[in-house]
Amino acid sequence: MLNRTVFFISDGTGITAGALGKLLEHFPSTNFTQVRMPFTDTLEKIRLAQESILHAAEEKGGRPVVIMSLGNMELRNTLKQSNAYFIDLFNTFIDPLGIELDQKPLTGAGIAHSVMGTKYNDRMEAINFTLNHDDGMTNSGLEEAQVILIGVSRCGKTPTSVYLAMQFGIKAANYPLIPEDFERGALPAILHKHLDKIFGLTIKPERLHAVRNERRSGSFYASLDNCRKEITTAENLMREAGITWADSTSRSVEELSAIIMERTRKPT
Amino acid sequence: MLNRTVFFISDGTGITAGALGKLLEHFPSTNFTQVRMPFTDTLEKIRLAQESILHAAEEKGGRPVVIMSLGNMELRNTLKQSNAYFIDLFNTFIDPLGIELDQKPLTGAGIAHSVMGTKYNDRMEAINFTLNHDDGMTNSGLEEAQVILIGVSRCGKTPTSVYLAMQFGIKAANYPLIPEDFERGALPAILHKHLDKIFGLTIKPERLHAVRNERRSGSFYASLDNCRKEITTAENLMREAGITWADSTSRSVEELSAIIMERTRKPT
Repeated sequence: MLNRTVFFISDGTGITAGALGKLLEHFPSTNFTQVRMPFTDTLEKIRLAQESILHAAEEKGGRPVVIMSLGNMELRNTLKQSNAYFIDLFNTFIDPLGIELDQKPLTGAGIAHSVMGTKYNDRMEAINFTLNHDDGMTNSGLEEAQVILIGVSRCGKTPTSVYLAMQFGIKAANYPLIPEDFERGALPAILHKHLDKIFGLTIKPERLHAVRNERRSGSFYASLDNCRKEITTAENLMREAGITWADSTSRSVEELSAIIMERTRKPT
Repeated sequence: MLNRTVFFISDGTGITAGALGKLLEHFPSTNFTQVRMPFTDTLEKIRLAQESILHAAEEKGGRPVVIMSLGNMELRNTLKQSNAYFIDLFNTFIDPLGIELDQKPLTGAGIAHSVMGTKYNDRMEAINFTLNHDDGMTNSGLEEAQVILIGVSRCGKTPTSVYLAMQFGIKAANYPLIPEDFERGALPAILHKHLDKIFGLTIKPERLHAVRNERRSGSFYASLDNCRKEITTAENLMREAGITWADSTSRSVEELSAIIMERTRKPT
């Protein structure tokens, strides 16, 4: 396994630079140590960053990767005197895009304020909705939900709902399928009128067994046998109700959310 | 206000391409319509994407911006025959980074699986922790928290906690400061032994008044006068306890999280 340190150096919050961290996932054989340096907006702070880069290079062998978003040209050029592999968001992306749009890019602190428009408020509203409708907490307000996730306990409904809300501003409720539903052989009655926005999650029994065992080791709830039965019954219920589902066993919340957005065709 | 359509076209989940959407925030004077096209992994789907690009160009006037992440060269080159401003993540970033790392980048579906390592599990664990410790829901397990946010009701604690957990895998509890605390003139007793990891949020009275009024219009709780008193008292309590705080009035959760990470120096 290769080792590299990645620095995210920004004159603002470092959110844009941090987002580029996703690119590193294309290289799973390298072990990246990530160092965030937001608010690096003076020459003195740039010098400190340079010392850290030098230190990381000595420590890891390979030269560090620096993902940088610095509006000020002097800071930018000073930082680049370090020995590192630079991904300069301004040179590569922001400045050329500004030329295309015929518009001077906002930099540093200016940005944070600009993101707080209607879409931002929708996201915050969605997070509150999702937290108030986690785990079947309440039956009221489900009309407002844009997506309702269902599935057995601990199959990944909560983090997926939260991601949908945080990332896309989707009001995502989630509803567990529990032993009472399995005995009755039917989805919870409240869900019947919302079938068009329900999406199912399922999981492999072995994985569910492992996840539940972490919480309630040795319990009937966590036993492989019970996990198998719950999953089979839940899938049958979903199949009968014509509900689309996805398997969360080897999918990240990011991937599950992309699938849910695609299948339910919610506008972002 | 300029209008442009931005397409995120990917052969996988579109998460990497979508992350680049953050760059658009540097251009607040342009009104971007965002269209996500994940799982675009066949020539037929590329053709559909091209039609959408053409349609968007006719509709908006300006040529569309296409942020693309396509591993396959044929798909990539076909898409680029459209009339658009292309930001090609492979050409610009991923391939050159692969040369630097001397490693062939994973593409498409391969990626989603690669992100589910220890860090991923930490993030999922942090989300569960944060939801179970939202709004002072329980006093148990606060030892495990890496950050405890405090502040008056509706000042932004919940979305900030969720963002810290989702983005950075930080176990963030949050605890409201309520009238009982103000009357007693002291922070909740349970918090005293956790002062080193408490971070405060505050907000301008006018903004809090507006936010609370949306929920409980005309109530004493939402009145400007009560908001003013609560905020003044909360700030006094935090000052006396030596707690650092930030004003959420015109800061996004992204910015607040960056500030909290910086001040509490939690490793990511």
